Amino acid sequence: MSIIDFVLGKPLATSEERAEQIGTAAGVPIFGLDALSSAAYGPEAAMTLLIPLGLAGASLVLPLSLCIVTLLLIVFFSYRQTIQAYPGGGGSYTVAHENLGTFAGLLAASALMIDYVLTAAVGISAGIGALTSAEPELNPHRLALCLAALLLITIVNLRGLREAGAIFMFPTYLFLVCMFAAIAITVFKSVASGGHPHPVIAPPTPGAATEAFGIWILLKAFSSGCTALTGVEAVSNGVKAFREPTVKVAQRTLGVIIVALVLMLGGIAYGAKVYHIVATDPNGNSYQSLLSMLLLAVAGRGWFYFVSIIAILLVLIFSANTAFADFPRVCHILSENFFLPLSFANRGRRLVYSEGILVLAAVTGGLLILFGGVTDRLIPLYAVGAFLAFTLSQAGMVKHWLKGEGKRQWGNIFVNALGAFCTGITVIVVAVTKFMDGAWVTVLLIPSLLILMYAVRRHYHYVSDQVRDVKPLNLENLSRPMVVLPMPYWGMVSQKALRHAIEISDEVKVLHVAEEDKPDQFCQNWAHYVEEPAAKAGLPVPELIQLHSPYRFVIAPIVDFVCKLAEENPTRRIVTIVPELVERHWYAYFLHTQRAALLKASLLMKGNDRISVLNIPWYIK
Amino acid sequence: MSIIDFVLGKPLATSEERAEQIGTAAGVPIFGLDALSSAAYGPEAAMTLLIPLGLAGASLVLPLSLCIVTLLLIVFFSYRQTIQAYPGGGGSYTVAHENLGTFAGLLAASALMIDYVLTAAVGISAGIGALTSAEPELNPHRLALCLAALLLITIVNLRGLREAGAIFMFPTYLFLVCMFAAIAITVFKSVASGGHPHPVIAPPTPGAATEAFGIWILLKAFSSGCTALTGVEAVSNGVKAFREPTVKVAQRTLGVIIVALVLMLGGIAYGAKVYHIVATDPNGNSYQSLLSMLLLAVAGRGWFYFVSIIAILLVLIFSANTAFADFPRVCHILSENFFLPLSFANRGRRLVYSEGILVLAAVTGGLLILFGGVTDRLIPLYAVGAFLAFTLSQAGMVKHWLKGEGKRQWGNIFVNALGAFCTGITVIVVAVTKFMDGAWVTVLLIPSLLILMYAVRRHYHYVSDQVRDVKPLNLENLSRPMVVLPMPYWGMVSQKALRHAIEISDEVKVLHVAEEDKPDQFCQNWAHYVEEPAAKAGLPVPELIQLHSPYRFVIAPIVDFVCKLAEENPTRRIVTIVPELVERHWYAYFLHTQRAALLKASLLMKGNDRISVLNIPWYIK
Repeated sequence: MSIIDFVLGKPLATSEERAEQIGTAAGVPIFGLDALSSAAYGPEAAMTLLIPLGLAGASLVLPLSLCIVTLLLIVFFSYRQTIQAYPGGGGSYTVAHENLGTFAGLLAASALMIDYVLTAAVGISAGIGALTSAEPELNPHRLALCLAALLLITIVNLRGLREAGAIFMFPTYLFLVCMFAAIAITVFKSVASGGHPHPVIAPPTPGAATEAFGIWILLKAFSSGCTALTGVEAVSNGVKAFREPTVKVAQRTLGVIIVALVLMLGGIAYGAKVYHIVATDPNGNSYQSLLSMLLLAVAGRGWFYFVSIIAILLVLIFSANTAFADFPRVCHILSENFFLPLSFANRGRRLVYSEGILVLAAVTGGLLILFGGVTDRLIPLYAVGAFLAFTLSQAGMVKHWLKGEGKRQWGNIFVNALGAFCTGITVIVVAVTKFMDGAWVTVLLIPSLLILMYAVRRHYHYVSDQVRDVKPLNLENLSRPMVVLPMPYWGMVSQKALRHAIEISDEVKVLHVAEEDKPDQFCQNWAHYVEEPAAKAGLPVPELIQLHSPYRFVIAPIVDFVCKLAEENPTRRIVTIVPELVERHWYAYFLHTQRAALLKASLLMKGNDRISVLNIPWYIK
Repeated sequence: MSIIDFVLGKPLATSEERAEQIGTAAGVPIFGLDALSSAAYGPEAAMTLLIPLGLAGASLVLPLSLCIVTLLLIVFFSYRQTIQAYPGGGGSYTVAHENLGTFAGLLAASALMIDYVLTAAVGISAGIGALTSAEPELNPHRLALCLAALLLITIVNLRGLREAGAIFMFPTYLFLVCMFAAIAITVFKSVASGGHPHPVIAPPTPGAATEAFGIWILLKAFSSGCTALTGVEAVSNGVKAFREPTVKVAQRTLGVIIVALVLMLGGIAYGAKVYHIVATDPNGNSYQSLLSMLLLAVAGRGWFYFVSIIAILLVLIFSANTAFADFPRVCHILSENFFLPLSFANRGRRLVYSEGILVLAAVTGGLLILFGGVTDRLIPLYAVGAFLAFTLSQAGMVKHWLKGEGKRQWGNIFVNALGAFCTGITVIVVAVTKFMDGAWVTVLLIPSLLILMYAVRRHYHYVSDQVRDVKPLNLENLSRPMVVLPMPYWGMVSQKALRHAIEISDEVKVLHVAEEDKPDQFCQNWAHYVEEPAAKAGLPVPELIQLHSPYRFVIAPIVDFVCKLAEENPTRRIVTIVPELVERHWYAYFLHTQRAALLKASLLMKGNDRISVLNIPWYIK
């Protein structure tokens, strides 16, 4: 078993792929992880922006949450219809592409790709944030922990997640149980104490208000809170994976996810209000996550707290996994349409799109390093991409209903139009309010990705126009090639190469590069070693050409000669033979010149269509 | 003009090499730099070891210097004779190799190579030490300054030092003038004040004695002081470069160098004694070099001080250059005798042995980093190599005179034997006293280098036995090769490759790798595209072979097929054609799979002598 087999698993045959048959219970963890885990950072992201308002901020949490929950419900009904209309899987790219054209499709794809990168980065950084809230001495190692988690997820995904459902199910339900328990206790204590429950461990006292309440700060908090909606589209992407009746099961799964998410968002907002919890500075070393403070207030630092924190940690880190499942799939579809390098379409040894996984891991890692693994700095980049994809998908659905045959379904049109309108407004609000904080990165990246994708396709079309040919084999004007063979001295390697040359051509030109301008010993022995035996055997005699190289360059004169020969014989093919001494030990690299490799590379770079290279190895035993 | 041309200079033709015609005036800087500059660190290295003796140490400087000067004179007379006996250049390697055999030669060569690395490292670090003595605020940047100086020297040497004499002459003579002036003033003031001159700026007061005087500390100080002798052999290496009468001019040059060195060593010792100067801790931040303290005592912090410091700095850094001139030359000779990789024997674009220069620069840089650019830590490694080379060279000279024809020249034999004896004793003293301080590194490195060099030669002989062949071309059993051509789909690239295949062989096997086990569309079209046209043209029909690859690997099945084919046809050669799409833009690397490159590499690694690769490029316009 090789190391690669151990780390990445044995290769899987294409025929080993199996159809998935997912029910609601398994569907919630697999497709809901991303959406549900948003509850762990969305409200906090909104509240972080309310820090300057001091304690006054806590009272704004409930109305803000109400707005976000309303938006969530609109998006829910929109996507319910998408599932119905696209039982084969209706990702934003597909829906936008099919209904609104290539440009809208690519726009949605770019937005989605950026969204997935951020899902991975935010999931990991928020998960590690939960961990360091529980163990503050780990705070200085936040970035290192993030990168370790990223590495782990990458390896797991390169192996392929065939038992994904089983792995995800436990932490997801544990997370839901813990959250609902915490919310239930909060409500119970609150009611019992007449609205003023006493926290077991009190949250840090909020700082004094440094800013007054204003519409701008509210819009910014709303924009950040919208990140709680990310991941809602996942079910609509993967409808195909559900068991019969596919559409019904998928819709029910989405319903369960949305209800759970609404309950959590409401519960967290309520808890923050009654316990007077405000966010802490995420850049500071005394940072504590909102959920950590809430759990401490509800139940103190006991087993319930630690189990909950572990569940949050697992759910957040696993939520990054959603990106690892979806990003490569989007790249694969784009690559099949020639919008991304074709290698994204290759499935690796474990049937996964390895290249997409590696690119996602690299970009996410870069992002984590750039932003120091702090969730709060990543949030402003996040929601733009997700909501742009929402908007395009919903707008596509409107078009889909409009062009549908038969009776216009005005109800459907209204729901999707409302979805498109609300998410569209949200995109604008988010892009404007977060522009200076980092959304400009996303706003710039989306068109850049678009331009790149168009350029890639143009390039492939250009190449394809040149090499495509559906005509049968043309056998006119066949002729044996001319052969050029560089030979520094006479020996076994040279003889073998020369025999090979004579076998494939009647015109063999042997090149001898020499510093001096007059024939050297090699040339003097040429007649004896080569010309006489060839003449005696009745074979065409190879021609010896001495190249003068005053600057001691060896490769350049050979390449120049070959190019000139090709120019002088415009209808002939020229095979340059490159003999090469091959040793299978690494240290041999230092003992022999790398001229053969350099000559091959140089001929490939400077040559033309009629110049090919025949590499003849000589293995040292 | 390319960047490389700008940094390294335009290439030089071999014929542009010119014979040098050096007289004594130019010879002293060129060949004496290393020896003369030793005066700047040798005495200081000895005195640093006397620090624990406190003020008592200062009185030991004169007797110690006397010992060292005596040894220097013995070495001088020895090398005078080497010059006479080897007017073509008598480096230690040459003399030991010719007279004492290969082993002694290689031993001398190893010792020399280590000596040169240390010459470079010590020269640079001592030069920068002089600079930081004058400008103490530069002390924390010592290492960075050392590396910058190393980079500069490396680039200058890669360009080739054709005007070396002129560059070196000015700082060398400036250094001599400053040193002699300082010594003359010291003597004058000392005599005028009756042996107790008043220093202009007093040297730091020596610390209290922490150790008693002992023979061990004296031997250690002597060993360190012996570094003052390094570089004396340079003239004997380069006799050929002097003008007629070569031997006389070379001997006179060596004489001038030795006299100047003796005067400086004596003068420094005298100055240290009368001004009560003791060395300062070289690891401390208040480190000041011996010469700096002497110059301050003599003339204060004026223009004379700064001019002298600059001269010392230049001479020391240029002395590193001696190593850059000689190290590559030794590597070149060893490489021509197959004791080092052959690439050391290639002269670069500027006629210098570029590889030797680069290796020296890398090793010196490593050493400087390892030892933090502090001269004192490098000194213990230094003298062993130099004196071992001295000993072997002198012993070789004894053998030379003994085996000489005609009358035995007992005078000559006595001088070289005395030289060999004294330097031999010194090697032992140095190795023993400095063993724990770092000489063990040198003592271990020398045999390691020896083993390496023997291993390299054995390898070359082994390879050479396999490929050497002085018989004329054997033309028996020629036959056209079998051709294997992988083809994923039918198009221009495939057609071109297939035409090429048909041109060079009657047996063409086309490989089609498919995931499925049954014939795909490509196979169904095969008859139409290839078989029919070939049959119609009366040509042998290429054979289509579909390879089943359940794991989606493309390269492995092809390589396996080719290897199996070679096994089944033990007398045939097999040409594997690898068509390759070539684009001349770097970004194209990401757009096309690297399968062609991987296939070529894989065939080279797993193939055998009868498998060759024909690379047919298709250039995208």
